[in-house]
Amino acid sequence: MGGCVLIQGACQATPLWSEAAFSIFHPPSSIRYLLAVQFQKITILGVGLLGGSIGLAARRHKLAREVAGFVRREASLRDCEKAGAVDYATTDLLAAVSQADLVILCTPLAQMRALAQQFLPALKRGALVTDVGSVKAGVVREVAAVVQQAGAHFVGSHPMAGGEKMGVLAARADLYAGSVCVLTPGKTPNAAAVRKLEKFWQSLGARTLRLDAAQHDLLVSRSSHLPHVAAAALVNLVLNSASPQDQAGLCATGFRDTTRIASGSPEMWRDIAVANRKNVVRSLDDFVAELKKFQAALKQNDAPAIETFFATAKQRRDHWCACGASASTK
Amino acid sequence: MGGCVLIQGACQATPLWSEAAFSIFHPPSSIRYLLAVQFQKITILGVGLLGGSIGLAARRHKLAREVAGFVRREASLRDCEKAGAVDYATTDLLAAVSQADLVILCTPLAQMRALAQQFLPALKRGALVTDVGSVKAGVVREVAAVVQQAGAHFVGSHPMAGGEKMGVLAARADLYAGSVCVLTPGKTPNAAAVRKLEKFWQSLGARTLRLDAAQHDLLVSRSSHLPHVAAAALVNLVLNSASPQDQAGLCATGFRDTTRIASGSPEMWRDIAVANRKNVVRSLDDFVAELKKFQAALKQNDAPAIETFFATAKQRRDHWCACGASASTK
Repeated sequence: MGGCVLIQGACQATPLWSEAAFSIFHPPSSIRYLLAVQFQKITILGVGLLGGSIGLAARRHKLAREVAGFVRREASLRDCEKAGAVDYATTDLLAAVSQADLVILCTPLAQMRALAQQFLPALKRGALVTDVGSVKAGVVREVAAVVQQAGAHFVGSHPMAGGEKMGVLAARADLYAGSVCVLTPGKTPNAAAVRKLEKFWQSLGARTLRLDAAQHDLLVSRSSHLPHVAAAALVNLVLNSASPQDQAGLCATGFRDTTRIASGSPEMWRDIAVANRKNVVRSLDDFVAELKKFQAALKQNDAPAIETFFATAKQRRDHWCACGASASTK
Repeated sequence: MGGCVLIQGACQATPLWSEAAFSIFHPPSSIRYLLAVQFQKITILGVGLLGGSIGLAARRHKLAREVAGFVRREASLRDCEKAGAVDYATTDLLAAVSQADLVILCTPLAQMRALAQQFLPALKRGALVTDVGSVKAGVVREVAAVVQQAGAHFVGSHPMAGGEKMGVLAARADLYAGSVCVLTPGKTPNAAAVRKLEKFWQSLGARTLRLDAAQHDLLVSRSSHLPHVAAAALVNLVLNSASPQDQAGLCATGFRDTTRIASGSPEMWRDIAVANRKNVVRSLDDFVAELKKFQAALKQNDAPAIETFFATAKQRRDHWCACGASASTK
């Protein structure tokens, strides 16, 4: 076995190949391959769409010697196998976490702290623990405190990818390709752990960004949580049994796309809204103010103001698309 | 030349084939082909995304002996030719309309009445005139009155298809396939003209629905115009120069899809909002009330109410998708 393939000193694993040997026989087509085998064992806690897609990608790019998955229900074991998302899945939490040098919490937000306390006895000293939660301030504070007790490092992650389809059977190895992954290192980060986690996400095709957890939560309340609430409110208003006959028949592709995310998991979105409620409440105030401003122009039949409203939106969105800020778009 | 292929007596054209002859050599795969050649001349006034897609489909399915297009600018003539959207395009309005037995107004809403008055001298007696406007009450009343002066029939249409890309170069022959097209026949409709127009849209793959114009305008203010306003308001709020740094980078695929329609034509949406402003003002009140109800639950940290909000939306949208109400979805 050769030396560590990583130049930056974050590698604790013994890789399968040295960088040189790898280069000779398998000319790297991208940096991704130079980073192969970063971990001996990756454990994914909760193997659904997000966790399953991490597993598929980690296996495809050979980022670990083994990828283990923890699931709560026996039935999920078969789905994990069917999807090929992990090397093996188990309902035994401590066995799953034991010897792992990367543990990824992919459970609902509300369960993370309790789960961390449960797996603590099996957590390896020096292990890196992260999560995929959409709200960070609470998790970073709570889970980090638990994980520290085992001499392990916690760095929060928020991979900004997903879909309204749930479960491991919807998982895809390329889910994170081109997406943005925010890392929230916390107040006293372990620099090596942060770099290592960045490389991990980059190996999955994501672009990484470091942010303060509170700042992250404010920004996603506007760019992600508010659109979810708006989409759900549109559906609840329009597809209502009190709506006039023919209403549903007059919903076309614009309605379909604008409300796509309203088909997401209600439990997950309840947790997100609760965890980030102060920011979401504020974003809703701002959104309602924006709607009211437009409504006032409409009441006054102010055609130039109405056109400016739509023109500004088009210009800003087209610019955003053109700038590749939506590189995750297909 | 054989007899008319249409069983229902709406055909004024001499078709290219008899139904029998056609059946022998080209077994019809759908009713669409039995309806071929319904018109001698179709004229499309304004050959953009909607008009161009009608032209492409009418030519593909051989619904007329000739498809003419009227455009305002010389430059548009070349684009029409490039797209193959019409048999010929012209900037001469009267020549375009002359001898047409189907005239389709595909210009912005605000221009329709004036255009009808301009082409009136060339309009054939007994011709069928329609439009593709997103708001109907005003158009049905105003254009119908003008068209009647020439002894022609006006029936409003609203094909519920489109896209945020504009212009004839974005036109597609299958734009209307699987979409809903609402017909607003007006107070004293010509029954044969209404049936004929229904068959025309069905030949383009649309499902037709007859509605009172005022009822149509109310329903689309909720299912179509409100989502547009919401999408534009989201963009204006989030992609704002006053937004914190990194805000745009944290907009992902959910934001992209929820706001897709905000990239539509500002002029078109100004016209729609102005033409339907009373309904849109009321729909905005209902939408804000829905958002405020959710916000109140959030302020009270009422997790069950928050979950119900998301669960109701998911259930209603999934049901709508499953019912094929979104058969226009791909």
